[in-house]
Amino acid sequence: MSETFVGIDVGGTNIKIGLFDSKLELICKTSVTTEADMGPEIVIDKMAQTVKDLLSEAGLSLKDIVSVGIGTPGPAKYSEGIIIRSTNMPKFKNVPICQMLNERLGAPIVFDNDANVACWGEYAVGAGKGVKDMVFFTLGTGIGGGVVSNGELVHGCDENAAELGHIIIYPDGRKCNCGQKGCAEAYGSADATAKRAQEAIEAGAQSSLKKVLDEKGMITSKDVYEHLAAGDKLAKEITDGTAKALAITCINMLHTTEPKRIVFSGGMIAAGDALLNRIKDFFNEHIWTLKKEGVEICFATLGEDSGIIGAAALAKHTEERGKLQ
Amino acid sequence: MSETFVGIDVGGTNIKIGLFDSKLELICKTSVTTEADMGPEIVIDKMAQTVKDLLSEAGLSLKDIVSVGIGTPGPAKYSEGIIIRSTNMPKFKNVPICQMLNERLGAPIVFDNDANVACWGEYAVGAGKGVKDMVFFTLGTGIGGGVVSNGELVHGCDENAAELGHIIIYPDGRKCNCGQKGCAEAYGSADATAKRAQEAIEAGAQSSLKKVLDEKGMITSKDVYEHLAAGDKLAKEITDGTAKALAITCINMLHTTEPKRIVFSGGMIAAGDALLNRIKDFFNEHIWTLKKEGVEICFATLGEDSGIIGAAALAKHTEERGKLQ
Repeated sequence: MSETFVGIDVGGTNIKIGLFDSKLELICKTSVTTEADMGPEIVIDKMAQTVKDLLSEAGLSLKDIVSVGIGTPGPAKYSEGIIIRSTNMPKFKNVPICQMLNERLGAPIVFDNDANVACWGEYAVGAGKGVKDMVFFTLGTGIGGGVVSNGELVHGCDENAAELGHIIIYPDGRKCNCGQKGCAEAYGSADATAKRAQEAIEAGAQSSLKKVLDEKGMITSKDVYEHLAAGDKLAKEITDGTAKALAITCINMLHTTEPKRIVFSGGMIAAGDALLNRIKDFFNEHIWTLKKEGVEICFATLGEDSGIIGAAALAKHTEERGKLQ
Repeated sequence: MSETFVGIDVGGTNIKIGLFDSKLELICKTSVTTEADMGPEIVIDKMAQTVKDLLSEAGLSLKDIVSVGIGTPGPAKYSEGIIIRSTNMPKFKNVPICQMLNERLGAPIVFDNDANVACWGEYAVGAGKGVKDMVFFTLGTGIGGGVVSNGELVHGCDENAAELGHIIIYPDGRKCNCGQKGCAEAYGSADATAKRAQEAIEAGAQSSLKKVLDEKGMITSKDVYEHLAAGDKLAKEITDGTAKALAITCINMLHTTEPKRIVFSGGMIAAGDALLNRIKDFFNEHIWTLKKEGVEICFATLGEDSGIIGAAALAKHTEERGKLQ
């Protein structure tokens, strides 16, 4: 019998599943379509069958599983193992996913939200390795977050902590999708970056991005960074707005949970140093001098596998802490 | 033998010391002058002698002490038991206060910064009782803070977490004493409240506070709240600025560690409901609707004794957790 941990990353389109050994090295992985409209019974059957197929492929059996980690978007009662509802999976309402998976796999299930799971992956084996205090941001449509404090994820009183995109950095500022005004997400997400560029052009700003907008009818953050690289002035202004928003949010986290490392992940980190260095510039410009040297700001290293690695790592951590149910 | 916990609250002017029973009920307390200019040996001798005197007064002996908690201002290496330096006690440089106290009292010493200790007091037996996630603000000259997450204080990677007054809420805004711009402290502390009123009057604003400024040469936050009660328009504007800054900071904490309760303490809470209700108003106006019902915002209940109660409670908690050295 070998000690195996399973990591499951549930998205609206695909479910990724990986098997990991006791050192969290990947044994094998796969991805299947979610087909969420088939309803929870069938989706969870498929998850369990896929785990069994992977085990079989690796010459392992259900008995080799120590525990299973699973990450899904919220809202959910993670500690109770229940998905309350899901934007991408409308048929998932009050689904006791942990119990259902446990019945099918016979192993303890550890459940957390997708951002926390990815955060834990980076913390355990990625960009956050070696520290005890880390803050994690995902830069995509919105800004997600995760906080590790003294070696544990921060969950908060209702398991909705680390909604870091909704830290208000400009009171009464840009409207955010959440209903607040001036959130970090309304400036620093990939969508907000694109939207701010588009608004500026529509308001008459000169930019090589205008041609993109005219041709495609929209701009993406990728366009902004491409035109930044080509020297476009508006693209630089927009990038600076994004970087400054993220830098201020980093400073605020430093004064709150005081991470040793701040890790950015998500599609927008493809922008590379053009973005990262500007975040650091604004951070250094706005931070209290005493704190300047204390923190490293960097990009995530696990890429697309962060969800399955994180889920497996969280399952392992929970088992080691003796909290498995 | 009865289980006794000692709480010591070290300030630049006075040292408060209390003895508490195993239920954290006060047995007896006293306050002695710090006389910091006598140097650490003499000050710590005096601390130890005062503890012995209190024990004697209560019919107890050194053997009854389970552990001693002590809170001081930073910067310090709390986990190593060393005061690095102190603004109010210039002769205290790299003082191994835990070792020195332990040699004199023979009991384990638990050491933390004064804001964390007061936070823990409110958490254990005051306004935060009954929750596992709490955020604590002290509103005085500056804004201090403490964060309890899942039943433990958040210390951060260099033991400087929860500097909540330096969360930036207005980037490029008012200069803060820390060197940053736009910190919560630069708007919401007692000093900032007074200073903003004074600046407004000097800039020509009409207010009944002008007479105070002319007569005393300065304005205090107490003056602002007195003139608010009397219906002064500027005092209302200034109070609103203070309350809004604190409300935005509360929202940011809610999206970070998600406390169940947010507790304000310090001299400025004497302003009472006139301040508290405005903080709640701005909080409700700016918060994401989904989160509105989740958190209680309230004032501290322990008053001046929070330091000694908190220190004793932290000593007890650390002992229960089995982490005493």
